[in-house]
Amino acid sequence: MLSKSEIKLITSLKQKKYRLQHQLFVAEGKKTILELLNSKLKLYQLYTTTLEFDASDALQTKITPKELDRISFLKTPNIALGVFKIPKPQPIDFSKLIVALDDVRDPGNLGTIIRLCDWFGVKDLVCNLETVDCYNPKVIQATMGSITRVNVSYVDLIELLSTKNKIEKFGAFMDGVNVYNMKLPNSGILVLGNEANGICKEVESQITQRISIPGFGDMQATESLNVANATAIFLSEFKRRATTET
Amino acid sequence: MLSKSEIKLITSLKQKKYRLQHQLFVAEGKKTILELLNSKLKLYQLYTTTLEFDASDALQTKITPKELDRISFLKTPNIALGVFKIPKPQPIDFSKLIVALDDVRDPGNLGTIIRLCDWFGVKDLVCNLETVDCYNPKVIQATMGSITRVNVSYVDLIELLSTKNKIEKFGAFMDGVNVYNMKLPNSGILVLGNEANGICKEVESQITQRISIPGFGDMQATESLNVANATAIFLSEFKRRATTET
Repeated sequence: MLSKSEIKLITSLKQKKYRLQHQLFVAEGKKTILELLNSKLKLYQLYTTTLEFDASDALQTKITPKELDRISFLKTPNIALGVFKIPKPQPIDFSKLIVALDDVRDPGNLGTIIRLCDWFGVKDLVCNLETVDCYNPKVIQATMGSITRVNVSYVDLIELLSTKNKIEKFGAFMDGVNVYNMKLPNSGILVLGNEANGICKEVESQITQRISIPGFGDMQATESLNVANATAIFLSEFKRRATTET
Repeated sequence: MLSKSEIKLITSLKQKKYRLQHQLFVAEGKKTILELLNSKLKLYQLYTTTLEFDASDALQTKITPKELDRISFLKTPNIALGVFKIPKPQPIDFSKLIVALDDVRDPGNLGTIIRLCDWFGVKDLVCNLETVDCYNPKVIQATMGSITRVNVSYVDLIELLSTKNKIEKFGAFMDGVNVYNMKLPNSGILVLGNEANGICKEVESQITQRISIPGFGDMQATESLNVANATAIFLSEFKRRATTET
């Protein structure tokens, strides 16, 4: 049975300001909830229609499908909704390859990029403060559980880049150097920009190496790759060298 | 001014059966409409609030923002909605690299894959009959105009693969050969499967070369790459060799 205050709390978590205030976020979908329960993340409360999850009784509430429908952020609710505590960001390891995002606004893109970082073993994802919140329910949905394995930090990106003098900062630009022909290190910061406008001027001034994925189609016509696909290809390029070039 | 029959026709085009019946599809968004107008596609009728497009008077109807709101498939309608004729598929060029999809269901994924084919100069995309329709409005939206430069054919994929004996058929599998270490030709068919289940058994039996993108994270945990990201990386691998390996 759901109380009015519970419904109010859960539905408020759609908004960033309430997620920040309560330090809680919502995850839905069986696979995602299972991954989160199996991680170091702390469960606040699980609302489930089936009681099939491995969580302590005190943290589990049996609800009806109708009640789930009322609190769910999905059009077609699953079997459960989990409320989890937002973890404290961990220190960033600058000795490894890091991905940095400048103003990525689409939740699906951020979720996919977190999943890509997980696949390619990138432990740290750094976002400027205008990038969409990684605890946005649509981002959590798109990460498919990868949020538990990638350390996402929100920072003043310009300041961070300007203080890291010894680290190579790669920026994705349409007119950068062909990434296929470059020597790529095992460390550095790979910066990707906004869906429509790319990397902003202030961040651009901190970039030490402009890189690009060459197109093979009619380049007058095709505008650009989607930011998540560009991230996929850049991470593939960085990581394959680590195994094939010695 | 919109007639009732026009509204009925346009809104019916949300459904595949009416698109097939009328051989028409809807495109929205200024950029997409401009690209379609500049292509070999034939305009059926353009409904616009601004009359700023380069189309003949007979094919252009000025409407109010309220009328656009009524016919638009978008939550936040743009300035125009175009109804275009579905083009006849062109013959497939099997001497080049072709992408084939087995049961890709998500419109965003198909749209992104069409955009990737365009970027990487893949002229032919072949889809099995259960793959989402490329004239679905969400697909058109996601292609960002690339639909005008990629020839999408819907076929009995199993039959097509079984008749192409001399062509190498690459299939994306979790346990395939590491694509980074392979020699890749300039031609062949690259097959990608369904979002949840991958390539089906019948298509799998036609594959001559299983390929895979190796992961670098905790592989017990990370399940797989999204099909569009996998396509991005595979196409990048096929195409970069054409320029760097001679």
